[in-house]
Amino acid sequence: MPATPFAKAISLVTLGVADVPRSTAFYEALGFVRSPQSVDTTTFFQLSGVVLSLYGRVPLAEDAKVPAEGSGFRAVTLAQNFPTVEAVDAAYAHALSIGATPVKPPEAVFWGGYSGYFADPDGHLWEIAHNPFFPLDAEGRLHID
Amino acid sequence: MPATPFAKAISLVTLGVADVPRSTAFYEALGFVRSPQSVDTTTFFQLSGVVLSLYGRVPLAEDAKVPAEGSGFRAVTLAQNFPTVEAVDAAYAHALSIGATPVKPPEAVFWGGYSGYFADPDGHLWEIAHNPFFPLDAEGRLHID
Repeated sequence: MPATPFAKAISLVTLGVADVPRSTAFYEALGFVRSPQSVDTTTFFQLSGVVLSLYGRVPLAEDAKVPAEGSGFRAVTLAQNFPTVEAVDAAYAHALSIGATPVKPPEAVFWGGYSGYFADPDGHLWEIAHNPFFPLDAEGRLHID
Repeated sequence: MPATPFAKAISLVTLGVADVPRSTAFYEALGFVRSPQSVDTTTFFQLSGVVLSLYGRVPLAEDAKVPAEGSGFRAVTLAQNFPTVEAVDAAYAHALSIGATPVKPPEAVFWGGYSGYFADPDGHLWEIAHNPFFPLDAEGRLHID
């Protein structure tokens, strides 16, 4: 099957969470705007180019028909890139101020950028980074090719 | 901190993988185009509105300064939405034909859509779905608000 435009997008990133209202409040405090398309069991945030969805961890596993048990490192991270080092520091401080779990304070990293990590209420990892080599457009989107 | 455009995007989704070249070949076979910005240790795919990144599972944990151990359900899924049920079936069949692990064959689901799941070589879950209530734009991006 040739690649189609529809096969080139991640439409949604869904995070399985223990408590949808708690996580919704967390992401709203972070600055995301809850979509009116949200329902009691599922919160949607329309971001720039992708929708972030919050859904119960157990029903998410049930939806995929896989066991819900799991622990430790998930090997998935979500990153927000910022135009400056100062914006990274401000975003990290803001996240901690609204209850994010500190994971790694922002610091200069080997590839020439500046990056920190925090975790959401369920331990989902977010990287907050400045990459001087990867420009952002006016909507904050990353375009690397 | 007020929400800024830069705080409204997921810039990158990074999947920690056991073998970056193997996973790169998998996603290329799926139809994604490897960005020339990729390096030996990290593959980037510019998708519509977000960059998918493949990085070693252990260095990804080290980057966040968290233990790399983990198992079972990751409570994160990535979804591609398609404009028709037939396109979902075709995408699922294509994924299996290039070596994806079948997880849930596409079927009608309770919320009125049609959805299946496959896993990549490291068990990362992808949902392939048609949602008749959520339109896609010409680039295949989902806009729900």
